[in-house]
Amino acid sequence: MLQTTALLTDHYELTMVRAALGSGTAFRRSVFELFARRLPEGRRYGVVAGTGRVLDALENFRFDEETIAFLREHDVVNDDLATWLADYRFSGDIWGYPDGELYFPGSPIMVVEGSFAEACILETLLLSIYNYDSAVASAASRMTAMAGHRPCIEMGSRRTNEWAAVAAARAAYIAGFASSSNLEAGRLYGVPTAGTAAHSFTLLHDTEEDAFRSQLAALGNDTTLLVDTYDVTAAVTLGVELTQGRLGAVRLDSGDLLTLAGDVRRLLDSLGAVNTKIIVTSDLDEYQIAALRAAPVNGYGVGTSLVTGSGAPTCGFVYKLVSRAESDQAEAPLLPVAKKSTNKTSIGGRKFALRRVSPSGIAEAEVIGIGAAPRGDSNDRPLLQHLVSGGEIIGREPLSAARERHASARAQLPSEAFKMSKGYPAILTTVLDAEGEQTFNPYAPQG
Amino acid sequence: MLQTTALLTDHYELTMVRAALGSGTAFRRSVFELFARRLPEGRRYGVVAGTGRVLDALENFRFDEETIAFLREHDVVNDDLATWLADYRFSGDIWGYPDGELYFPGSPIMVVEGSFAEACILETLLLSIYNYDSAVASAASRMTAMAGHRPCIEMGSRRTNEWAAVAAARAAYIAGFASSSNLEAGRLYGVPTAGTAAHSFTLLHDTEEDAFRSQLAALGNDTTLLVDTYDVTAAVTLGVELTQGRLGAVRLDSGDLLTLAGDVRRLLDSLGAVNTKIIVTSDLDEYQIAALRAAPVNGYGVGTSLVTGSGAPTCGFVYKLVSRAESDQAEAPLLPVAKKSTNKTSIGGRKFALRRVSPSGIAEAEVIGIGAAPRGDSNDRPLLQHLVSGGEIIGREPLSAARERHASARAQLPSEAFKMSKGYPAILTTVLDAEGEQTFNPYAPQG
Repeated sequence: MLQTTALLTDHYELTMVRAALGSGTAFRRSVFELFARRLPEGRRYGVVAGTGRVLDALENFRFDEETIAFLREHDVVNDDLATWLADYRFSGDIWGYPDGELYFPGSPIMVVEGSFAEACILETLLLSIYNYDSAVASAASRMTAMAGHRPCIEMGSRRTNEWAAVAAARAAYIAGFASSSNLEAGRLYGVPTAGTAAHSFTLLHDTEEDAFRSQLAALGNDTTLLVDTYDVTAAVTLGVELTQGRLGAVRLDSGDLLTLAGDVRRLLDSLGAVNTKIIVTSDLDEYQIAALRAAPVNGYGVGTSLVTGSGAPTCGFVYKLVSRAESDQAEAPLLPVAKKSTNKTSIGGRKFALRRVSPSGIAEAEVIGIGAAPRGDSNDRPLLQHLVSGGEIIGREPLSAARERHASARAQLPSEAFKMSKGYPAILTTVLDAEGEQTFNPYAPQG
Repeated sequence: MLQTTALLTDHYELTMVRAALGSGTAFRRSVFELFARRLPEGRRYGVVAGTGRVLDALENFRFDEETIAFLREHDVVNDDLATWLADYRFSGDIWGYPDGELYFPGSPIMVVEGSFAEACILETLLLSIYNYDSAVASAASRMTAMAGHRPCIEMGSRRTNEWAAVAAARAAYIAGFASSSNLEAGRLYGVPTAGTAAHSFTLLHDTEEDAFRSQLAALGNDTTLLVDTYDVTAAVTLGVELTQGRLGAVRLDSGDLLTLAGDVRRLLDSLGAVNTKIIVTSDLDEYQIAALRAAPVNGYGVGTSLVTGSGAPTCGFVYKLVSRAESDQAEAPLLPVAKKSTNKTSIGGRKFALRRVSPSGIAEAEVIGIGAAPRGDSNDRPLLQHLVSGGEIIGREPLSAARERHASARAQLPSEAFKMSKGYPAILTTVLDAEGEQTFNPYAPQG
């Protein structure tokens, strides 16, 4: 699809490498970690999405001649850096939380080990992908949790950047959405796509009956008719008549959906269209979906609030150097590093991560620490998967696996996780030191 | 850059055309309009960005063989539609608000005239571009207004989708940002790029002095040193010493910036580094920029809040059929159309739009209406530019023109527009009927 992802990169990544090449530190072995210091305000869990996209983007992260010419011309790079970039190919190792896994404050979503130079310049691309995709997946998961067995349809493409829309459809599908309106997501990722008609289609025709006949002729009786262009009662009645009661569904896109869905259900039943479904679509979010639990609704179409993360359009993931070689020697041991500035805690050293799960199958803690993971209860689930080994991508999986992982990981959460009110993370993050003792918990809820 | 933009499209756009092809209505001449019913809550004006990107995307909106094969395989299109799509090339006319222009509730940002089929299927792509780009430009404009003559640097790429980031850099530049961290925005759009180093660069080195020496050697004394990795006072003092007082700038990325900037300024001055600038970058938005007016700050780096629209990540633009041919006859006259559902007002008929400006140069109203624009005061500015004529793109312009347009259009706003508190649109939208009489104002502030 895209020629290169190499310039989806902040200017400073390259100036850092330029300076490090000059001073001889560029190839110190380094470990970077991608994590969030906290969840968006009041959220009880987060959902990882983006891992598969990161692997695709990594494969296309190459500095071709045109790219290097641009960088030279604008003095972003010098000769040494240009030569190094021309051969760039990530040769290190990456571990990460797979798509669909849950995350909590401090979870090391991705761990990148390689030379400083090769790991540093991936920062922007990795953060862009995870910060957006996981924001959408985290919102989507709350929506599908509230929808229960009723399907949710992603239809937010028109409300976000055109390529973000494709990523959003993928993220929503991982978090349990049934389908998407976005055709490119169908092509690129195999997300099922769906859609029938907008108000313009009805307005194009001389009468609503002309429009409905046209749609039924093209798409069959099983289609969904949009019934709120003029008068809902008349439109529903017409749709049932034209299909002899076999209409697939009606869509309501305005009004007080709780009342209206009940009225329409009674009307459909009275007309004998007991199998005709009701799809609602107007400015829904997880709160409105929850409020409509009591309504006779068969599916939800969600747009704006989904693709904007329902109030949290970015996850606040950061990418920090947590460890680097003690010296420029090839075999120098790794040294944990962390900056000291106010309110921006990070923990030096390369992490393990596991989800502690009770014997009855309920998640109890996110356990992270330095060194090797403790031998714990057999229910503990290791969270980091080896995705890239010596530069070779080994972590690809079908999207269905991510979707199943999300469903099973979410099912392990304690019930408080599904309160829609603002709260604290559903499980605590526990940090262990190298001896396996709990040292401190920088991510405890405040109060 | 991209092979085709044709599948950045909602499934229902194609099923509508499929049905309309079947019923013979697909080629009725139609007018669609892209507009916002309201500004984001409390905002006083909006800024259009996306026009230039829409023209680029339109040029790449082609259904190649692979694309059509996908659509056939998934039964999105039938034979007739596949044949029509293979030859698709927009052949109609488009008028629009150019990049950098301001908008208000009801402003017809874009007017698309062509057959129903050819205009309908552009809906998703146009809305995706305008909804995101204008959200960023609208936030950016408030930030640069508060920053005054101090430059703002866009550095939000890491907080939004990787391609949205490129669009955001462009939108921010239009709205007065001086530069961006995003290299692809530099290549694609000529946005000036900037950047020096992150905390990881300091942590990579054995000492802060090693890091600073390395950066100064590579980037010169005029560079910006990040001084809050360990101790700000020590770092500032070191940076001044190493450059004999000729350090370009220091960057502060944490702490209480108002106090800290004052302390650092005094320190720099006491060390003789009176020309060394102070750049601040931690979680800034328009409110924080305003609060820092009193601080001795020389530039602002803005990330998260910019690329997420500072609380309004989408503009709520919609794309509505406002007029279509009365019948399937080739020369049938246009008929205004509008749907009737609750709370989703639209006005049928093709619009003109102009900004009414007082003799002293202050914007007074957004005047829109059906038919020809009235012959008003010579200060009135027509807002719609002819962008595409008979399918030919005629509306391209350099990005600098958009940037200048934004600056001069914003300078015409009444001073209330620059209050950061929530309020009503700075000017009212006035709707005129075909005789030029004010008919109604559906966009009046509530209360």
